[in-house]
Amino acid sequence: MSDAITNWVERIRSGEVRALARAITMIEDSRPESLLLLKALFPITGRARVIGLTGSPGAGKSTLVDQLAREYRKQEKTVGVICVDPTSPYTGGAILGDRIRMQSHHADPGIYIRSMATRGFLGGLARATTDVATALDASGKDLIMIETVGVGQDEVDIVRLADVTIVILVPGMGDDIQTIKAGIMEIADIFVINKSDRDGAERVEREIRAMQSLAIRKDSWTPPVIKTVASEGKGISDLAAAIVNYEQYLREKDLLLTKKISNWRERLVEMLREALLQRVLNERLTEADLTHMAAEIAEHKRDPYTLVEEIVGGFAETSHHGDTEARRKARVAADQIP
Amino acid sequence: MSDAITNWVERIRSGEVRALARAITMIEDSRPESLLLLKALFPITGRARVIGLTGSPGAGKSTLVDQLAREYRKQEKTVGVICVDPTSPYTGGAILGDRIRMQSHHADPGIYIRSMATRGFLGGLARATTDVATALDASGKDLIMIETVGVGQDEVDIVRLADVTIVILVPGMGDDIQTIKAGIMEIADIFVINKSDRDGAERVEREIRAMQSLAIRKDSWTPPVIKTVASEGKGISDLAAAIVNYEQYLREKDLLLTKKISNWRERLVEMLREALLQRVLNERLTEADLTHMAAEIAEHKRDPYTLVEEIVGGFAETSHHGDTEARRKARVAADQIP
Repeated sequence: MSDAITNWVERIRSGEVRALARAITMIEDSRPESLLLLKALFPITGRARVIGLTGSPGAGKSTLVDQLAREYRKQEKTVGVICVDPTSPYTGGAILGDRIRMQSHHADPGIYIRSMATRGFLGGLARATTDVATALDASGKDLIMIETVGVGQDEVDIVRLADVTIVILVPGMGDDIQTIKAGIMEIADIFVINKSDRDGAERVEREIRAMQSLAIRKDSWTPPVIKTVASEGKGISDLAAAIVNYEQYLREKDLLLTKKISNWRERLVEMLREALLQRVLNERLTEADLTHMAAEIAEHKRDPYTLVEEIVGGFAETSHHGDTEARRKARVAADQIP
Repeated sequence: MSDAITNWVERIRSGEVRALARAITMIEDSRPESLLLLKALFPITGRARVIGLTGSPGAGKSTLVDQLAREYRKQEKTVGVICVDPTSPYTGGAILGDRIRMQSHHADPGIYIRSMATRGFLGGLARATTDVATALDASGKDLIMIETVGVGQDEVDIVRLADVTIVILVPGMGDDIQTIKAGIMEIADIFVINKSDRDGAERVEREIRAMQSLAIRKDSWTPPVIKTVASEGKGISDLAAAIVNYEQYLREKDLLLTKKISNWRERLVEMLREALLQRVLNERLTEADLTHMAAEIAEHKRDPYTLVEEIVGGFAETSHHGDTEARRKARVAADQIP
């Protein structure tokens, strides 16, 4: 590890905000140095509890996260917040407002808030979010909240890999549950009905219960339904308690490590998918190659299926793969040449 | 090519519905035979025009697609429809209703409709949708409509790669444009304001125009805004005409092939990403390996970044890569052994 990296890691570990901010920017930009940094940061992570929160637009996620952050600060825990924001860059008014509101914590060094847009991440948004969480963890944050709008598979995948996943619903959106993305109801460890002073909160709860009666989770946990009015701070301590309860349950049942392993397994596959593609694009295919191939396909001179097989086959052809015995022996000899 | 595949391709080409349905099921299941079939089908594709349609839940997409299909059938064109449906499997009531309504075409052999859920596709939904479109194209359909709910990046990516992309908006959803997924406004070749007899249609049009004034497209095309009331069949022929206009524009400007090449380029990268991962998972890593690695990461015995580098490095290590001259020569010799 270079001195520069060692020094940087030390500054992040000691909680220096500028060192952390620089690390996150580098991770977002997917710069080569970020990989060196992440390797060095990983050994000092694993302490933070990661909470994923998702829900439809308008469910009041930002306010809820804001209130939960206050609650944790009261408990003298440090907090990192990652806001993953897939809404259009054209009309970011409301969202910008949310972010500004959250800056009310600005003077508090115990909380760090970072927004991430969903577009333009080399290697994927899920990768970038996970890596930013790693940096926050290394900086000593006790809790990391990842907030996404649960409309896309990407965003669902991100919160699903948290230690605790919270799905936020609101009454009066009528077909809210109906139109919610497949998989989002299944991922909740805890349900929140926010704006629960509105008409229809009971109906939403009944719908959740009806849905729960259809499927039993592998870990036998029944996700509780917590009612909040985040804008008035109501129900927030109940939610914090529900999070503690769930963690307690995982610990008692010896499922905490099981869950972490299962999460890492999925992350590993994602990291592999991206790393393999990047390697091929960096080493084997130029931009011009890709365009040339695409043209041949568009003109129906080649079929894409065979072409992809050829590229993958060429890339995967290692020295020992598919060899005859004679070739293998000759190669063993070749490998012994110093 | 095996006789079975040749025969199957012939039956699909001649428009036999059962052969087509079986092909699509095989593609959805990502069975190994499907790759052989797709290779054989590709040369007889390229005739169909692919139209992608997306919009928020409740925008009336299904009705619009239904009406557009009727319009094309009046013009004696054959139609394939792929409905990509990301809504929760728990409460599929409304959606099921839509699908049943579309079955009103059931007796017409000139139209084929297929719904696809968004979950559980090995190799990704975009891959499966594209391949199903290939099968429909090979079966001689003049037009293929791909309908998605534009809430996720996956769904946006799917329609974006059509020859013509239509984004459907509705008045009175207030913050509809605001909360729409990043990228969705940028992808429209044609905007439709459906349910345009409702209050607020003018406002939606103004918002689109305002947005258009901010960005000029590379192809200099200004996407028209078509007003429809799909449930009454209003504006459907205008929409069909707008689609023809856009194609005409692309042809005149010599952009049709350019667009196809650009689309194929993106598809190629997606296909590569998936094929590389599958190859590694099939050949190099067992399920047990993955779980073991995930456990080591979860227990902080290894860092995931170095681990992924090692796997990718091992996979990419071809016989000629990173060799010393002596090794290379020995290997050249080894390769000459018959």
